[in-house]
Amino acid sequence: MTQPRPKLEDPLGAFCTDTEAYLPGSTGGPLSGLSFAAKDIFDVAGHVTGGGNPDWKATHGPADKTAWVIQKLVDAGAAMVGKTHTDELTRGILGENAHYGTPTNPKVPGRVPGGSSSGSASAVAGGLVDFALGSDTGGSVRIPASFCGLIGLRPTHGRIPLDGILLQAPSYDTIGWFARDPEVFAKVGAVLFQNQIPEGLPTRLIVAEDAFEMASPEVAAALQPAVEAAKEMIGADRTERLSPVGLVEWSAQQQVLQGREAWDTAREWISQVNPRFSFWVAERYMTASSTNDAKVAKSKVERQEVIDRMDELTAGGGVVCLPTSPAPAPPLGQSLAERRDVLSRIVSLTCVAGTTGRPQISVPVAEVDGMPVGLSFLGERGSDELLISLAGKLFANLSD
Amino acid sequence: MTQPRPKLEDPLGAFCTDTEAYLPGSTGGPLSGLSFAAKDIFDVAGHVTGGGNPDWKATHGPADKTAWVIQKLVDAGAAMVGKTHTDELTRGILGENAHYGTPTNPKVPGRVPGGSSSGSASAVAGGLVDFALGSDTGGSVRIPASFCGLIGLRPTHGRIPLDGILLQAPSYDTIGWFARDPEVFAKVGAVLFQNQIPEGLPTRLIVAEDAFEMASPEVAAALQPAVEAAKEMIGADRTERLSPVGLVEWSAQQQVLQGREAWDTAREWISQVNPRFSFWVAERYMTASSTNDAKVAKSKVERQEVIDRMDELTAGGGVVCLPTSPAPAPPLGQSLAERRDVLSRIVSLTCVAGTTGRPQISVPVAEVDGMPVGLSFLGERGSDELLISLAGKLFANLSD
Repeated sequence: MTQPRPKLEDPLGAFCTDTEAYLPGSTGGPLSGLSFAAKDIFDVAGHVTGGGNPDWKATHGPADKTAWVIQKLVDAGAAMVGKTHTDELTRGILGENAHYGTPTNPKVPGRVPGGSSSGSASAVAGGLVDFALGSDTGGSVRIPASFCGLIGLRPTHGRIPLDGILLQAPSYDTIGWFARDPEVFAKVGAVLFQNQIPEGLPTRLIVAEDAFEMASPEVAAALQPAVEAAKEMIGADRTERLSPVGLVEWSAQQQVLQGREAWDTAREWISQVNPRFSFWVAERYMTASSTNDAKVAKSKVERQEVIDRMDELTAGGGVVCLPTSPAPAPPLGQSLAERRDVLSRIVSLTCVAGTTGRPQISVPVAEVDGMPVGLSFLGERGSDELLISLAGKLFANLSD
Repeated sequence: MTQPRPKLEDPLGAFCTDTEAYLPGSTGGPLSGLSFAAKDIFDVAGHVTGGGNPDWKATHGPADKTAWVIQKLVDAGAAMVGKTHTDELTRGILGENAHYGTPTNPKVPGRVPGGSSSGSASAVAGGLVDFALGSDTGGSVRIPASFCGLIGLRPTHGRIPLDGILLQAPSYDTIGWFARDPEVFAKVGAVLFQNQIPEGLPTRLIVAEDAFEMASPEVAAALQPAVEAAKEMIGADRTERLSPVGLVEWSAQQQVLQGREAWDTAREWISQVNPRFSFWVAERYMTASSTNDAKVAKSKVERQEVIDRMDELTAGGGVVCLPTSPAPAPPLGQSLAERRDVLSRIVSLTCVAGTTGRPQISVPVAEVDGMPVGLSFLGERGSDELLISLAGKLFANLSD
């Protein structure tokens, strides 16, 4: 069923060179003429899904079936032109892969692209494809969108079927995508949600004070004009603190629960294969493997507190506005010690959507010293289309 | 100073293919005509020491100076013909290297060679060299000697200078070697200890009952004739339990202390490089990184108890006889879960010499189902030459 892939130009190191996965788009669909790439966690029939780890690749056979989401896009006319690099088994937020190298961030030379959907973000930001699929378990679409200056959505958990993807932690895994252009972004959304993207706007904006405090002052300041524009567009806003206990606390329970679930998903394979991982990734699994059940039980209670608090805060259709990332893309090759602080602050921001299963869209609205930073909108479950509409209108507003 | 290496025949995958380190022996020395290999943790001037990890190799430059021990052997006439594979940074006891593959155990196809001095043991057992250098921190010479049917010595801690080797945990690191032939073995010892190997025998043999209980019944039974021969040769023996608290307890403190020291040795490099490790190796470092100071302090007390007990037991020149390994070489490719038990029993036997800094020699005296198993003699600090003499005499006795 597969056809030979046309030659791919890839000056960014975004694409996997060890797979020829390629699917031409069906003719006449709404996405005709558009090209896309898919993170190498999405199955394409007849090809091995590599997952960013050579030992995963070596111990798995070719996929029987193409992932639901890829098939949907191809049936709608888009051409899948290649698989893109990912952090190992999607564990990572910076996009540095110790085995395959780091895709270039075309917007900020010398800085990471963000991950784990690193190659997809790089390929879209560099204009190699019109859009690209990623996945977001703990921030893996939102963060590279912010670092590479793209629109990126983490959808409502469960809205896009996970069939045919390499899972990290299924209660948290979502499929998202990146585009430069809001119209392309919306077209893809209409296909994947099998729904029209409305023209509406949320009725109420909640500016997350504690989330802006988590960001560096430079990032918070750079995002301010876009926040003001959003307030004006929506017409009703208030400023609130999301977490009564602090966002770092909020992220801790997700680290525990997502980590445990990721360990449960991978542990048998890890024991069988003794795979090579970068130390940081092995450390994630190890930490999760030694988490005791009491801590898991306590974290589940804390998770429910996050869910309840967010339900209360957004009751009646409120959309929360927050920085996508506390900082622009960090430099390439930082030590593990140097990364620790920014990683902790990143997950303190990304955990809200992950924990609540809510959709969050990142919009490239500003720069800090020439480096993109995204502004995020987090809505109620099922409000994905509304967020896409808001992103498009804000993007247009700021481009005027 | 380096010369091109003559073509090396290596049907066993024992040698590193990415280094051409080679040093011809000086003429006229006591080791003239002998060839040897060195584990790729020993420096050879002008060559990068790889340490069994590609990221270690990539982040280190060529050595300035050749390791003391290699220079000594070359000056004595032996030719260093190549570097051999090792478990990553010497962390491992089975010899399976996830990056470079596993050297063949020429004595037992389908089974591991033992590690971490895996390539050195493989090369000697397969007749590719006359002898080979390894290192033994927690058993890395003794175990491959047992698995591959070789004589192997862990010397008294500090007797052979560690200058120019990649350290794992300096309080435990020792340099040892392998040979098939006891005369070759003794000649190398005379050079490295700068001392004659005496003709004597220990005056008293202590058969370690609890150590034999740690071995499988098949191993204990197979070793019995050699134990009897040693008793007869020495003429005075008694059976004792080494550990009042159990050998598993004894090994626990070494895991803590050696682990902590290994972490302190590697932590800065790990943070800077975020290297790729097999999961098992990363797990060792991770576990050590989270050991608290109270546990270290408690382990130091327990270490002293081991030292005191062994001093008491061997006062007046006693040599302890124990199985080198509880089992023959395990099969290749076992899962981490399947390995757990044998690894725990291995370190319960190897910990006694490691903890006390005592020398231990493994002698290939028996087989179980065609697989070699070694019998070990553990002496007082400084009794290395006596152990070599004993090994030679026992070997001759059993070959009669």
